[in-house]
Amino acid sequence: MDFFEVVSKRYSHKGKFLPDSVPLTDLERIAQAGLDAPSGVNRQTVQLVILPNKETIAPVCEAAPAWGILESAPAAIAVLTNSALTPSDAMNFEKEDYSAAVENMLLAATAMGYVSLWMDSPYFDPDKRKAASQVLGAPEGFRLWAILPIGMPEIDVERRVKLPFAERVSYGRYGVKR
Amino acid sequence: MDFFEVVSKRYSHKGKFLPDSVPLTDLERIAQAGLDAPSGVNRQTVQLVILPNKETIAPVCEAAPAWGILESAPAAIAVLTNSALTPSDAMNFEKEDYSAAVENMLLAATAMGYVSLWMDSPYFDPDKRKAASQVLGAPEGFRLWAILPIGMPEIDVERRVKLPFAERVSYGRYGVKR
Repeated sequence: MDFFEVVSKRYSHKGKFLPDSVPLTDLERIAQAGLDAPSGVNRQTVQLVILPNKETIAPVCEAAPAWGILESAPAAIAVLTNSALTPSDAMNFEKEDYSAAVENMLLAATAMGYVSLWMDSPYFDPDKRKAASQVLGAPEGFRLWAILPIGMPEIDVERRVKLPFAERVSYGRYGVKR
Repeated sequence: MDFFEVVSKRYSHKGKFLPDSVPLTDLERIAQAGLDAPSGVNRQTVQLVILPNKETIAPVCEAAPAWGILESAPAAIAVLTNSALTPSDAMNFEKEDYSAAVENMLLAATAMGYVSLWMDSPYFDPDKRKAASQVLGAPEGFRLWAILPIGMPEIDVERRVKLPFAERVSYGRYGVKR
């Protein structure tokens, strides 16, 4: 699919998924797009855990309930970073690294006809994040940021309205409009 | 250009640029891709300042030197967030928001045949960030994160080597390989 078509089609699927499974090769292609994202100082802090079916997703949702959305997904990709690769807080790019990887994967899923969601909120609570991390086998010093459910939508969900271009873009200097 | 071709072609251009100008409509298309990225709680914290020519780039580089790279670029897009849109530190997604927008723009530039760079390091120093922010006219409470130089490469620069897929992807649980 053409790049700009993908970008305009991507949306946050805050709904349930059809049970149809996702071929592992498709999940790997999405994961590869995530790994192709840039990383601060090329440290490549991002580690991915492909959850290829409901059997691998269910225990993660038991540890940290995920609004029924991840629960319904036929596949998912968990996004972690290895914090040990970062030498200091001042040079910590784990959040940038994981965000760029997630965006690439959301777009890649869209390019292949799937829908997905940047699902981070179930893991804001440190206890739930820890519980989900343990199920995922994350080593000490790894941080779980988000899990992306991937599949076909059960129903078309409403898309969020965005501000007009002119309200978010300036020319030469903030506030200068065309 | 096909989405996956764009993803695999994108690289961090840590080199100089040819002086050829970039049409404003191309910069706007890149900016639109940035605004199409998701944002936490749909707050749309990202604000972009298009720097369409060397005349608008030069004073920013005087305030915060940028390794000769941004200095040589014929165009650029500055990426800021409006911190006032965030109600609390715990629900602050400015870094995720700006990172997703940057990744979309790096890919969009690649899709159109340009090269770019996630240039954040000149603005790590608070004094330099403040100086560049003032040149850009950023209001109080806005945060400058990065400026993306955009143009055609002067020379082909070396691309960073990435770890093999198998070292960064697990199946079902961290460490489980195919």
